[in-house]
Amino acid sequence: MQLPPSDDASPYIIAPAPAAPGLTRAVTGTDQTGAPQTIDVVEERPLTIFLNAQEIVTAMTIGDYPEYLALGFLRNQGMLKDGETVLRVDYDDELETVVVRTDGQTTYEDKLKKKTRTSGCAVGTVFGDMMEGLEGVTLPAARLRTSHLYSLAKVINTTPSLYLTAGAIHGTVLCEGDRPLVYMEDVGRHNAVDKIAGWMLSEGVGPEGKTLYTTGRLTSEMVIKTALMGIPILASRSGFTAWGVEIARQVGLTLIGRLRGRRFVCLAGEERLIRDADPAAVADEDSKHRRKGAET
Amino acid sequence: MQLPPSDDASPYIIAPAPAAPGLTRAVTGTDQTGAPQTIDVVEERPLTIFLNAQEIVTAMTIGDYPEYLALGFLRNQGMLKDGETVLRVDYDDELETVVVRTDGQTTYEDKLKKKTRTSGCAVGTVFGDMMEGLEGVTLPAARLRTSHLYSLAKVINTTPSLYLTAGAIHGTVLCEGDRPLVYMEDVGRHNAVDKIAGWMLSEGVGPEGKTLYTTGRLTSEMVIKTALMGIPILASRSGFTAWGVEIARQVGLTLIGRLRGRRFVCLAGEERLIRDADPAAVADEDSKHRRKGAET
Repeated sequence: MQLPPSDDASPYIIAPAPAAPGLTRAVTGTDQTGAPQTIDVVEERPLTIFLNAQEIVTAMTIGDYPEYLALGFLRNQGMLKDGETVLRVDYDDELETVVVRTDGQTTYEDKLKKKTRTSGCAVGTVFGDMMEGLEGVTLPAARLRTSHLYSLAKVINTTPSLYLTAGAIHGTVLCEGDRPLVYMEDVGRHNAVDKIAGWMLSEGVGPEGKTLYTTGRLTSEMVIKTALMGIPILASRSGFTAWGVEIARQVGLTLIGRLRGRRFVCLAGEERLIRDADPAAVADEDSKHRRKGAET
Repeated sequence: MQLPPSDDASPYIIAPAPAAPGLTRAVTGTDQTGAPQTIDVVEERPLTIFLNAQEIVTAMTIGDYPEYLALGFLRNQGMLKDGETVLRVDYDDELETVVVRTDGQTTYEDKLKKKTRTSGCAVGTVFGDMMEGLEGVTLPAARLRTSHLYSLAKVINTTPSLYLTAGAIHGTVLCEGDRPLVYMEDVGRHNAVDKIAGWMLSEGVGPEGKTLYTTGRLTSEMVIKTALMGIPILASRSGFTAWGVEIARQVGLTLIGRLRGRRFVCLAGEERLIRDADPAAVADEDSKHRRKGAET
């Protein structure tokens, strides 16, 4: 599809809406002095995803974009195939369900039985073999200017978001060149990625030339998910695991970690970087941001 | 059991071993100037957990204490019942499997089919109903002095750990009074909690009078897991979700969030706190720590 032009106010097609009703709730506790303290806290609600007649999973989510979350989840789990046509997506706010109806009839009983508990995570599960489909992956050629990388980070970090207002949440941003297109947030970092996958599927936006930015750690399943989405470049302000780096090198994904201020480290796919920015000319983040990588 | 006395050098029964072989690997990338940069990165490896003849799950873990992880995981999933006797736990480093053998014969086919994707998380899953067993929970009476809370945080935050040396990891610490007993780390924050549950089960250590400290966010499933472990107090330096707070209030768990320097907020179970410390006399953390809650 043709992406709509960005207006001057915002480069985003979808930006966070931290003030939207239902995403946060005021919770009152007592602070260290015993005085009452009221804090805006992110919501966390169940959403049960059905594929046709079959209940697939119940996701804990902040609750925005349930249709994108369902579509992206099913797509990223390999349960929605390329050929398959999505007939309808029905979200029921009261029942907290979203039903994706396709022309396919496949059931995934076997897949649902094999579980892999993933990292950074509650009891993470990737249905079926985690590496499934990776052999077939060839990521598109792409280039990323470090000047664009720096400007993306600056825009994203200063975009009003639940991350900045409430915390305890993860953000993922689909970018193209120096433009952040879609910025999704969720209590589960993979929900945010799945919402982006669902948006891409709905809007017919391909992964060519895209960069995925995440606040979360670059663990194995985050790298695998990005590769399966066909996105050639993955960047994070956080840290990474040894296996995450190993997989990125295997599949030819450009992996950039610890992107903070002028600093970053490119761990794989260096050939996609065009180093056109002078790091010394980039403002460094103040110290309160510097160690974020340790957290996520 | 009788807890061993702490020596002067360390209050811990189990402390992190950041220099232990196999937990980290040196990974080389290029920094923002294009210069090679070598970083110690945490490992992430699969561990497949069997209960008797049945394969239950494959966890992504840093790899230490596989027996505790398996025992704690099965216990926290309600797959190891109180009455059940654990006959043997066999870990195979080459096969990356750990087999827990009990005198029970139960199979969990039905349980394994129902999935709940949890927060902060890849594709998090809690087998069976997430709230299962919560109705029955009555948490033991306990008191926590804020002077102990402050000293625990200080000791834990300055303990040599993978968190401080490599980052991209979560830590959880079982504490009693002002003493941190067992400090576990893992790429998956719930693995760290499960290792502690496994240790408690193996050593016959009960939850009475214990406080659980975590670097991770206080999401619903973290609160539920702590309550099901019978631990009356849960503290974190990170943020929390509205539902996490709601559940803590329902089950009577004392929930403390955003514990940084002199600051904290008590969101539930205030009655267990003895406010014997003067917050003004406590050194505040420097700004680089202050916003950690936003990350995890």
